[in-house]
Amino acid sequence: MAKQKPRTLSGFMELLPARQVQFERMAEELRRTYSLYGFTPLDTPIIEASEVLLAKAGGETEKQIYRFSKGDTDLSLRFDLTVPLAKYVALHYAGLSFPFRRFQIGKVYRGERAQRGRFREFYQADIDIIGDGKLDIANEAEIPSIIYQTFTALGLKRFQIRVNNRKILSGFYAMLGLSDKSGDIMRVVDKLPKIGPDKVRELLTDEVLALTGEQADEILKFISITGSNNHVLSALEEYRSRHELFDTGLDELNTVVKYLSAFGVPEENFAVDLTIARGLDYYTGTVYETFMLDHPEIGSICSGGRYDNLAEYYTDKQLPGVGISIGLTRLFYVLEEQGYLNDSLITSPADVLILPMTDDLAPAISLATQLRGAGIRTQLYAEQKKFKQKMSYADKLGVPYILLLGEDEITQSKVSLKNMSTGEQELLSVDEAIRKMLDTIGAGNAAAPIQEPERG
Amino acid sequence: MAKQKPRTLSGFMELLPARQVQFERMAEELRRTYSLYGFTPLDTPIIEASEVLLAKAGGETEKQIYRFSKGDTDLSLRFDLTVPLAKYVALHYAGLSFPFRRFQIGKVYRGERAQRGRFREFYQADIDIIGDGKLDIANEAEIPSIIYQTFTALGLKRFQIRVNNRKILSGFYAMLGLSDKSGDIMRVVDKLPKIGPDKVRELLTDEVLALTGEQADEILKFISITGSNNHVLSALEEYRSRHELFDTGLDELNTVVKYLSAFGVPEENFAVDLTIARGLDYYTGTVYETFMLDHPEIGSICSGGRYDNLAEYYTDKQLPGVGISIGLTRLFYVLEEQGYLNDSLITSPADVLILPMTDDLAPAISLATQLRGAGIRTQLYAEQKKFKQKMSYADKLGVPYILLLGEDEITQSKVSLKNMSTGEQELLSVDEAIRKMLDTIGAGNAAAPIQEPERG
Repeated sequence: MAKQKPRTLSGFMELLPARQVQFERMAEELRRTYSLYGFTPLDTPIIEASEVLLAKAGGETEKQIYRFSKGDTDLSLRFDLTVPLAKYVALHYAGLSFPFRRFQIGKVYRGERAQRGRFREFYQADIDIIGDGKLDIANEAEIPSIIYQTFTALGLKRFQIRVNNRKILSGFYAMLGLSDKSGDIMRVVDKLPKIGPDKVRELLTDEVLALTGEQADEILKFISITGSNNHVLSALEEYRSRHELFDTGLDELNTVVKYLSAFGVPEENFAVDLTIARGLDYYTGTVYETFMLDHPEIGSICSGGRYDNLAEYYTDKQLPGVGISIGLTRLFYVLEEQGYLNDSLITSPADVLILPMTDDLAPAISLATQLRGAGIRTQLYAEQKKFKQKMSYADKLGVPYILLLGEDEITQSKVSLKNMSTGEQELLSVDEAIRKMLDTIGAGNAAAPIQEPERG
Repeated sequence: MAKQKPRTLSGFMELLPARQVQFERMAEELRRTYSLYGFTPLDTPIIEASEVLLAKAGGETEKQIYRFSKGDTDLSLRFDLTVPLAKYVALHYAGLSFPFRRFQIGKVYRGERAQRGRFREFYQADIDIIGDGKLDIANEAEIPSIIYQTFTALGLKRFQIRVNNRKILSGFYAMLGLSDKSGDIMRVVDKLPKIGPDKVRELLTDEVLALTGEQADEILKFISITGSNNHVLSALEEYRSRHELFDTGLDELNTVVKYLSAFGVPEENFAVDLTIARGLDYYTGTVYETFMLDHPEIGSICSGGRYDNLAEYYTDKQLPGVGISIGLTRLFYVLEEQGYLNDSLITSPADVLILPMTDDLAPAISLATQLRGAGIRTQLYAEQKKFKQKMSYADKLGVPYILLLGEDEITQSKVSLKNMSTGEQELLSVDEAIRKMLDTIGAGNAAAPIQEPERG
């Protein structure tokens, strides 16, 4: 028979088993943390009617959409989890209680140009809190505190959540009489880490933006306010009472910083940063970006902010919210590339592999049933192979333990337990073997998925 | 602004939060059970190249495919998890260890005619064991034992896994000289529960199949062998030594029945049933279907079997396997319809809702941080609302506990804990409140997702 060459599309991540286990542990840790903060899991279709999904979209996004027809229906694959959330909340408004707090971890699709580390199918992990009419500022502090907890639980230490407030930025540009140009200015300022202050000044005063030298200097002075959070907040007080929106933003930022410490977030993981703007016009208050301190070149690994109108394309209801998103597939890819995945995590499908040494498998099956009843992930090796091949299989899987069950063991109602990392082998009762395994495997299974490399 | 009416496509399940939690608990229980049996989690893309995905397909399946182009690439959405598994194993053969045991819970797509209870996007939950060249018969007993454990863990009791062996059927038809017609005969026999024996006899002897009356009677006699597993197996011994394939099948069935009891599966949940054939020619050995005893009209809720050639369209390697699949979305739909979902499961996003009674939220935030540190799913209600509205929100979410934190409590370093089901309210230290909540919420969160209705 002619064979079809098997392949997986480029831009679509497909992992080998051990790597997949590490990915699953990350997703599990996200679900656990988000649940701890009172978020409910949500699942929405991957396919939506195009006119619903694209009610707002335009530009770059629209070009990347996977869009097609089935019968008479114009369909699209979701490109993020925010638009489906907006649809969900507008559609099911009457069945929801507000504030509505949901998390969603799901695949999204963007037909980006294929290149290393770029994915066309990727997981996003989103949390959002949606208010009905209003939403308290405390929520804007809770979101980064969850992200702090999440990354800490994953095993990451050297990261920093950078926070700003769009009202401060808009208020500041209004003071300079530059409200009309604030979007364009922010896009230029965004390039500061890459091109430096001189080049930024040049772009601000060129014929396109046409700012005066004085205005450009004011902007450069403003965004050069850095230091401890207290220092930055004090420096911002100098601008108080010159514009109402700025003052509101500053009050909000003060509250967020104060609450973040009550949420238990240490200052080294959290910094006020006036250069954070977020490209989208969508955000109206606190905005977040998160950086790996040892890999700034990767860019933000978790971003979001406060918005005033989640579902304006679907409903007249005012639904303000605050949310944040982790691009999980890309993050996993980066962590693997940089050697951040924890190899002490047990990635074998089982904690123990039973190797029966008799033709009749019934005793080995009963043993497997007993171990599984005790909560031990157990695989029974049922194939007729040479002992050496069985051991090589155990090695390849990376199981922490094997159990040998031959006539001798069966007669004595014992098992031979072999610890695969120490090589130690003991003849034990089943209960003793269970206790021994339970004492050690828990830590390996629950290990943090990320372990930061030693820095030299 | 003109609004786009929000809607979700028909045939696409989208649940409200409490229902979604019940669905997630089911999926979690599947992951837990499959892991206990030494299966590794797998995730493959939803989109595949059409020529890869459709290497084998034809007929009904092909018509239902979501197929489209993006750029120059002809793409299709997966319609099951078996073809992607075949591709995965063929593609990553060198990186896998055999037997390769994987589970996958994922969405698949079929453009079926829209009708109540039929889904175009639905979850399948599959387990498969793939051998390299050979695969021991013990695996064919392990698969139904996992399904027994899975449904039991979900809370289902009145179900039965029905097992047969294709070799017995093929051998039997060979005895009658009907090998050529066996596929068509099995399709007719499959209708027995619906149309009864007389009508089956009529179809077998009509001009299309043209069996003799004697042949038809032999078939009806054969498929009317019912009773306890031992009784059926004894009755089958009467046919022994008339055809080699039949004898092999009977040996296999005897082994499967013997091992199933070592796997701890009670006979009421497991029956040899000679009418089970499975439509697909794909299966070559043991086959399974699973029925809810009180709802036979629903049909099989979990089906599968042994196959000899998983990936013959992609590779020359002989990769026999055995697997089974649960149509999770449809099962969930059916369970909801029939009142099988357990309402004592905690479905609120949090175990406790903190209601701060002060303007400064910092003490409430610190309390929330403490509770989350103790593993209690905690939501902080930060909105400025009247007390009555806050209580109504707590009611709607269905949280088991609320914690009131006012000036009095803060001064005394206490909290007021209210049990929402009993109405009881107590002034307690934070540690006392944590202990009290941990004592009770565990059971509600870990409750089985299914509770069978009382039968009258």
